[in-house]
Amino acid sequence: MTESTIRLTGPLDPRTGWTAANCPIGRTLDLVGTRSALLLLREAFYGTTRFADFAERVGISEPVAAARLRELVDHGLIEREPYQEPGQRTRMQYRLTQQGAELFPALVALMQWGDRWLGPAGVELRHRDCGELVGAELRCTGGHHPAVEDLDLVARDRRTQAAHA
Amino acid sequence: MTESTIRLTGPLDPRTGWTAANCPIGRTLDLVGTRSALLLLREAFYGTTRFADFAERVGISEPVAAARLRELVDHGLIEREPYQEPGQRTRMQYRLTQQGAELFPALVALMQWGDRWLGPAGVELRHRDCGELVGAELRCTGGHHPAVEDLDLVARDRRTQAAHA
Repeated sequence: MTESTIRLTGPLDPRTGWTAANCPIGRTLDLVGTRSALLLLREAFYGTTRFADFAERVGISEPVAAARLRELVDHGLIEREPYQEPGQRTRMQYRLTQQGAELFPALVALMQWGDRWLGPAGVELRHRDCGELVGAELRCTGGHHPAVEDLDLVARDRRTQAAHA
Repeated sequence: MTESTIRLTGPLDPRTGWTAANCPIGRTLDLVGTRSALLLLREAFYGTTRFADFAERVGISEPVAAARLRELVDHGLIEREPYQEPGQRTRMQYRLTQQGAELFPALVALMQWGDRWLGPAGVELRHRDCGELVGAELRCTGGHHPAVEDLDLVARDRRTQAAHA
């Protein structure tokens, strides 16, 4: 048991006074809130580009992989581009867009949590330059590394908060 | 289009040579890889403790909320404890465990991604002490802030890598 809650401030306190209809976590999960979507993104970070490899390496059927990749393309996280190997017909390959690439901290956060709480994995992420382990941590733009209980949830603009919170 | 891939090293290169059966991202998603589980955790970070409030604030039915909360309790992310208000019967409340609390960087990473790519939300996280915005960043234990393309995926122990990768 912990007291790891953030503090709700201003018009956000109490929690009964607003709905999280525009919650950025929820909207992100509308796009990538399935195990298969997130593992397809993992494979893209591992350098996988070909359709059949995505399905096999995530361990999902080709119809499921096709549906999920199409969603990721539609949402702008992955791009399709044609490629051709000598003597073969033109095929499509899949690569992360900038938008997709910026989800990497979320994957790293899930990775480090699993590694810590579910037993160590056989792989780890290291910074090439210095060789040290890499994780995702809370940082403020002031350069601090705050704990959960040192965080405030703040309404960005009180006039529009009711509509957008 | 970006070249945001990490480098696979040693026995992990090429990707065809191993399976990610013990992937810590996948194992974490086995526990919390649904939209409703992650939004229930969000509410716990916002201070919600009562069953009916979880269901209402996440916008899911009580049966779904009950099933998901039970899974989160079974997996050790949330704890149930009895509480009693004056004149009422004893009820259960739900709080994050340390294990659950350590998932917060993953939620923050999803939050900042949604805020950046899907339009700004009405809420933002700030560090109480300095007032600055908070996000989840890649950091190595050497104190650097590496880019995705500066990361190596490394086999932790080559002797057991085949079993655990």
